Parts: sequence; structure tokens; C-alpha cells
Amino acid sequence: MLLPAIVDLADGNPDWRIFVHSAIFTGMISGLVLMATQNHNVRFSPRLGFLLTASLWLTAAFLGALPLYFSHLPISFAGAFFEAMSGITTTGSTVLVGLDNMPRGVLLWRSLLCWIGGIGFVGLALLLLPSLRVGGIQLFHMESSDKSEKILPRINQIALGILLAYAGLSALCMLSYFLAGMSMFDAINHGMTTLATAGYSTHDASLGFYAHNRLLLVISTIFMLLAALPFVLYIKAAMPRRLSSLVDPQVTLFLIIVVGFSFTLAAVLRVSDGLPFGDSLVIASFNFVSVITTTGYATEDYSLWGPVSIGIFFLASFMGGCAGSTSGGIKMNRLIILWRLTVTNLTRLIMPHAVVKIRYGETEVSTEAAQTVLLFFFLYMASLILGAMVLATLGLDFVSAFTGALTALSNVGPGLGDTIGPAGNFSTLSDPALWVLSYLMLAGRLEIVTIVILFTRSFWTR
Amino acid sequence: MLLPAIVDLADGNPDWRIFVHSAIFTGMISGLVLMATQNHNVRFSPRLGFLLTASLWLTAAFLGALPLYFSHLPISFAGAFFEAMSGITTTGSTVLVGLDNMPRGVLLWRSLLCWIGGIGFVGLALLLLPSLRVGGIQLFHMESSDKSEKILPRINQIALGILLAYAGLSALCMLSYFLAGMSMFDAINHGMTTLATAGYSTHDASLGFYAHNRLLLVISTIFMLLAALPFVLYIKAAMPRRLSSLVDPQVTLFLIIVVGFSFTLAAVLRVSDGLPFGDSLVIASFNFVSVITTTGYATEDYSLWGPVSIGIFFLASFMGGCAGSTSGGIKMNRLIILWRLTVTNLTRLIMPHAVVKIRYGETEVSTEAAQTVLLFFFLYMASLILGAMVLATLGLDFVSAFTGALTALSNVGPGLGDTIGPAGNFSTLSDPALWVLSYLMLAGRLEIVTIVILFTRSFWTR
Repeated sequence: MLLPAIVDLADGNPDWRIFVHSAIFTGMISGLVLMATQNHNVRFSPRLGFLLTASLWLTAAFLGALPLYFSHLPISFAGAFFEAMSGITTTGSTVLVGLDNMPRGVLLWRSLLCWIGGIGFVGLALLLLPSLRVGGIQLFHMESSDKSEKILPRINQIALGILLAYAGLSALCMLSYFLAGMSMFDAINHGMTTLATAGYSTHDASLGFYAHNRLLLVISTIFMLLAALPFVLYIKAAMPRRLSSLVDPQVTLFLIIVVGFSFTLAAVLRVSDGLPFGDSLVIASFNFVSVITTTGYATEDYSLWGPVSIGIFFLASFMGGCAGSTSGGIKMNRLIILWRLTVTNLTRLIMPHAVVKIRYGETEVSTEAAQTVLLFFFLYMASLILGAMVLATLGLDFVSAFTGALTALSNVGPGLGDTIGPAGNFSTLSDPALWVLSYLMLAGRLEIVTIVILFTRSFWTR
Repeated sequence: MLLPAIVDLADGNPDWRIFVHSAIFTGMISGLVLMATQNHNVRFSPRLGFLLTASLWLTAAFLGALPLYFSHLPISFAGAFFEAMSGITTTGSTVLVGLDNMPRGVLLWRSLLCWIGGIGFVGLALLLLPSLRVGGIQLFHMESSDKSEKILPRINQIALGILLAYAGLSALCMLSYFLAGMSMFDAINHGMTTLATAGYSTHDASLGFYAHNRLLLVISTIFMLLAALPFVLYIKAAMPRRLSSLVDPQVTLFLIIVVGFSFTLAAVLRVSDGLPFGDSLVIASFNFVSVITTTGYATEDYSLWGPVSIGIFFLASFMGGCAGSTSGGIKMNRLIILWRLTVTNLTRLIMPHAVVKIRYGETEVSTEAAQTVLLFFFLYMASLILGAMVLATLGLDFVSAFTGALTALSNVGPGLGDTIGPAGNFSTLSDPALWVLSYLMLAGRLEIVTIVILFTRSFWTR
């Protein structure tokens, strides 16, 4: 919070005081928590882990909302909370209009929220969630902590490695943006929101502001892709002895999907807009990668590219990137397990006595782990359907309600339709709708299970 | 086919020949099949069961389409096939306009397709699918075939009992409709499509044609509800010794949902239209029961009742009635198992060493059976998303594509939106879209697994 304060102070914007006050408040809260948790006798339990995760993100969103709410922006508390939650969950949906003329402190704060949220989630997914047995990621963890595959000996070193990879790639992305023609301030902000696959921009037109600069779009596409790959990959890559272990089935699938759909969309765009194929490919791959990595930048309203594109962007909003990255959605590793599970179960129906194992790459997936993936899928879809139903009840039209719930749950950013589509934003939604969407963003970011479990009776009873 | 032929002949409609020709063709095909399957050495295998089920419904739709296609109706083969598939799967979506002035032979044929499809599906779900281990229904079967609970000793008797219940209730429904003021012909047709939870009507306005007759709507509501309860219940009810076994958790849940949402919608309608509460309740319960039982009658465009109603009807299209009835959708027994599965798995995350069993009523659900339900849910949602994507690619707007795929997969009938909503129909859709919807109706009716399995390699290899 002190960084935006410095920027605002340098710009002569009186909001710098708000940031300092918020920083002092946050510091006090942190100090109190620190003092209250001096008890070293607390034993780690799954219950504590779930509570910690949920309260960490909730607190971050609440504290992150303070400077936005008390600033000179015309924003309700629901709006400020939504904006901060959207940042910290790396969703990138915004309720703010007029970004191009907004104080630079606020813009930097939004980007910082995304950047912290991004590295926070990768750390959570790799270091805490596996021990809580949430989602399909423990599988990935099992692989990476397997003795024969041990990458770095200690948890601290893994954390440090990931932090270095994240910071290094962010710096590289900022530098590339700057060299390709972005202003320094824009390069820093977009660098942060690219690596976080968040999608906040410093312009209302998002990266459409730089759409004439094809090189910038290519750079952005590359870094969004890098941010949606498992970050452990970069630690592995730094140790060339282990090149073989770079092959991860989810990475292969992800790249196949990206290449396949980018070319399909490029062909669609070539026909509908008559652009040269090179330009079509740059624009199509940028917008598709933006959605499938759950970043959510847009150069234009891609829902106008014709029927095929709506179907493809709709599908991409479900899929997401790889597990162990900053991206959201169902994610590639789960899609692979769901696919194998389906094939295995169907085979068992035909050949009841056949012994068929579910494999993920070379690892065998236990029935329990596979069931967790199915459970995630059920909770994801149930949240989507109920979320869409509640949003419709609050008065949103069907398209906005459904794709709004979807884009929040998958942490993408834009939905479909005139209101919240790639050319619109969330500024016209009512406060209740923003609260519902904030909940969905949080649930989606924390792999749903982590949030839903707080509503069970057994969580609160012994 | 000879029944509509007689009606058309009596009405002096030359289409009677078409029905006779189709009947002769169908008879020849049946004779050939009969001769070709004289080999008594064929052993029953799951493979054969799946192939039999799928080809039975496909053949029925194909043969059922013939009289529609060769009649004087302006209909493409895709349209005729869609109409017949919609009937035989008890969906009730129609491509025909001008039903009020349509030859009575065609109207009767549509209703007969539904009626045969309805009893066919109940038979399939109770007698064949359990031995193929498809869906959550084997659970129901296990219960009903459990030695201590044995209702009737032999499979033939169960089949006869269900047939009697189905025919008896249909006759009772027709009689009630007639006594409440429907014409004889309308009573017969609507009686058939009510018990089949199909929803074909003899009027473009569906039961809205009789909307002034509140008694008729109440009668229809009651019989739709009866058709969405497990038919085994009626055999049980006929043997009063076993009254306790009438309590089935899915029936309880179903009735709670129906009562709860009917009153909610009635309140909505009371406020929005200012009708007396009694009228509101009749209209609200009729339209809600029509959707949740996957019948698909409508008295008016309920999507205009305001935001709350859209959310409720959207949710109802997923749910469906009870297993072992003629209704489609996810169904109550699966919803119960999904709920219990979620609670159990979340509890295990908090208390890893707790032994928690999944129960359905008093029966314990095996892990394998529970996983089949999760797999069904995955295939259902994947079919929905991919179906909506393909329909959007074929040029449908988002609302029509998504709710069209949903209504087909759940065998409901109407979707949402101007085109295929309760006030519209499917007549303006292109042939490719009708083929996709026909596939989804078939897959939805046959519990998806039965169709998807035909696309696996292991089905076709030894």
C-alpha cells in the first residue's frame, strides 16, 4: 500500500493519505494477529488449514478494498470489495470506468493485488492445498515430492524457487512490454497482471489500446502462456539433468488445445474480417490465450466474430490452464483425469472383469484421488448453476447471469453479452450481484472445496 | 401406425395410405429382424445390451419419422426425425406449427410415439439398465429385488404390473380430462402425453388452449406428478401389507421441491400479475410441475414472470423427477446421492480417519455405485456444454443454444428465449441443429452412458 502512496504523492494526488492510513490499519491488524498467534502449542489440523486459507483471501480482499473505498472514486463498498476480490483472485473483472484518467496510485494498487494474489495462489496450490487433499493438485504434488523425482530438498527451497521464477518472469515481461513500446508505467502494471493471469489493465480498452502494436500482442500471448504452465516446470528447467521430467501430460494437452483453437479462430477471423492470415492469427491467439489462461485481456469484442467463436470462448472459459500455475478454471490435469476416468468406467461396463487402472502420465491415480476430481467437477457445476440462478433472480438477463457466474468461478474476467462481455464491464451491476460474484470468485480461486467445506456442520462440530 | 390410419381414413385424409405403407414397411423390417435373430445360441452380454437399447430407440425414431416425412406436412427428413425422436424420448419439443388444424392422424401418431416411448423407458430403466449397471437406477433395482423386500416374484410380473399401472393411470387421466371439459380426441392425446411426461399437445398454445379451465390444469398437474413418481410405487401401493416401503427418499425430496417452488412461484405471480392467490397457485404449480417432471406443457410464457421465475425454471430443467418414472433430467435419486457424496467427502477431508458411509434411505451405497452417479453427472454436463457449443457454432444465439441443449438432454421440451421458449417452438432451426438436438434427446433419454459407450474403442474391440 505504501507503493501506491508514493506514486500518488509524486503525482500530487491527495489519495496518498488514504493509502498510508490503510497501510497503518493493515499493519495494526497484522500486528494484532501476530501477537494473538504467539501460542506455539497449536497443532496443525486440516480444519485449521481450511480456515486459514479462506480467512487469508477474505482478509486480503477486505483490506485491499479499503483504499479503493475511501479514495475519491465513486464506488460502493460492495464495488470496492468486488474490485479487490477480483484482483486478489486474479480474475480481473472491473467495476471501474475511466481507467485511462484514473489516479496512478489506484491503478498500481489494482495490479499489485493481482500480482500478490497470483504468487499467493501458486504457493497455496503447491504448499498447503496438497496436505489438505484438495482438488487434483495433490497428485501433482505427489509427483513432485516423490523421492525418485525430488527436485529440491526442502519446502523453503521450492517456495523460493517459485518466487524467483514468478518475479523473474514478471520482470522479463515488463521489460519486453517496455521495449516493444509500452510506457514504463503501463509495462509495470501489465507485466504484473499478465503473470498473475489476472487481466486488469490501465486502459478501458484493455490491451485493445495497443492493438495496432502486433509485437506487443505476441509478447503478451507468450507470457500469458508461460504464466499458465506449472511453475515447478521452471525449477525443473533450471536443472537440465532432469529434462525428461519436463514432459507433463497436462502441458502437452494445453499446448495442443491452444494451437488448435488459435488456428481455428484465426481462420474464422480471416473469413469474417478479411484480415491477412498473420494478423488474424496474432489477434485470435491473443484473445483465445487470454480466455483459456483465465487472464481476460481483450483487444476487441470477440463475441462478434461469429457463431463459431462464441462456442469456442464459452468452452475455453471452463477449461483454464495447468495446475500449479496462476490460472483458474477446471484445469488441464483435471480434464485429463476426467477423461481417463470416463474411458475406464465405460470399459468396465463392457468388460466387468477387466482390471483397468487410471493413469496420469506415468503415475497411477488412486480411486480416492479420482473421486476428488469428480467431486470438484460436481461442486464447480453446482456452484455455476446455483450462482447463475441467484444472479438471474437478482435481475440479470440469462446470458449475463450464466456467463457472469462462469467467468467469476473460473477467474477469467469478461463474460458474454452486452453488459459484461469483452467490450463491457461490471459497473452497472447491483451491489447484491457484486457480492454473489465476489463469493463465486473466491470459491473458484480456492478450488471451491475449501470454501464449501466451511458450510458443513461437521466442520464446526467435534 | 394402423390407429392413425383408421382416424385419417375416417376423416377422409389421404395421408391414411402413408400410415398403412409405413406400417407394412415396419412390419417387414420387424419380420426380417425376427428371422435374423432366430439363433438361440447368442449369449447375453453387456455389449449386446447396450447395442440393443440404442438401436431400439434409433429404429423407433427412424420408423416413427416415416409417416411424418411422407405425409403432406412441409417437413424435412431432419424435422420428421427430430419430431419422432422428440416423441419416443418423451421430450415433446416440436417443429410443427398449426397443430390446431393438423390432420388428426398425425396428432394421434405423435401422442402414440410419446406413450410408447414412456412405457418403453420405464421398462428399460427397471428391467434392462440395472443389469448393464447404468446410472443410479441399479440401486433402486437392488432395493426392489432385495430378497426381504421382494414385491413380485418374477420379472414378467413386474413388467405386467408396471404396464397395468401405466395403462390404468393413462385411462384415468383421459377420463378426467374428458369429464373436466376436453374434447374426446384431446383427452385421449393429452392423456397419453401426460403419463409419458412428454408434453406434445394438439394445440399450438399447448394447454394454454384450456387455460381458462382451472380444473383441467389441476388434473394435469396431478397426473404429471403421478407420472414422475417411481412406477414400482404403484405395485407396492396395490399390496397394502407393505405400506412402510412406500417411503422412498427421492419421493419425499421430489414432493418437498414441488410444493416449495410452486408456492414461491405463486407468490411471484401474485405480485407480478395481481391474480388471486388461488389462480396463481394453480398456474404456477402447473407450469413448474410441467418443467420439473420434464413434461413441457405450458399455459403461457412463464419466462416473462420476472427474474425469479427464470432462475427457478432453469434449475428445474436440470432436476427432473424420480428414477423409475417416465421423466428425464438428473433425477431425484441421483441428486440425493450427489448430496450425500459431497457431505461424506467433505467430512473425510476434515476427519481423515472417520468411517463415513454413503446411505440412500436405509440402503448403503457402494463406492462403485456412487462413482457411477458422479460419472453420469460429468457426462451430462460435458454433453450439455459441448452440445451448447456445437449449437452456438451452428448459429443459434447463446440462450437458445444453451437452453436448447439443456431441454433436449433433460427431455423437457421448451427452452428459454424467444425462439425455443415456452411461447415458441423448434420450427425455425436449421436441419443440422435438429440433428444435434435429436442426438442430445436420445443421449439424455438413454442415461447418456448407453450412447457414449458406443463411441469408445473398447466397445468395438475384443
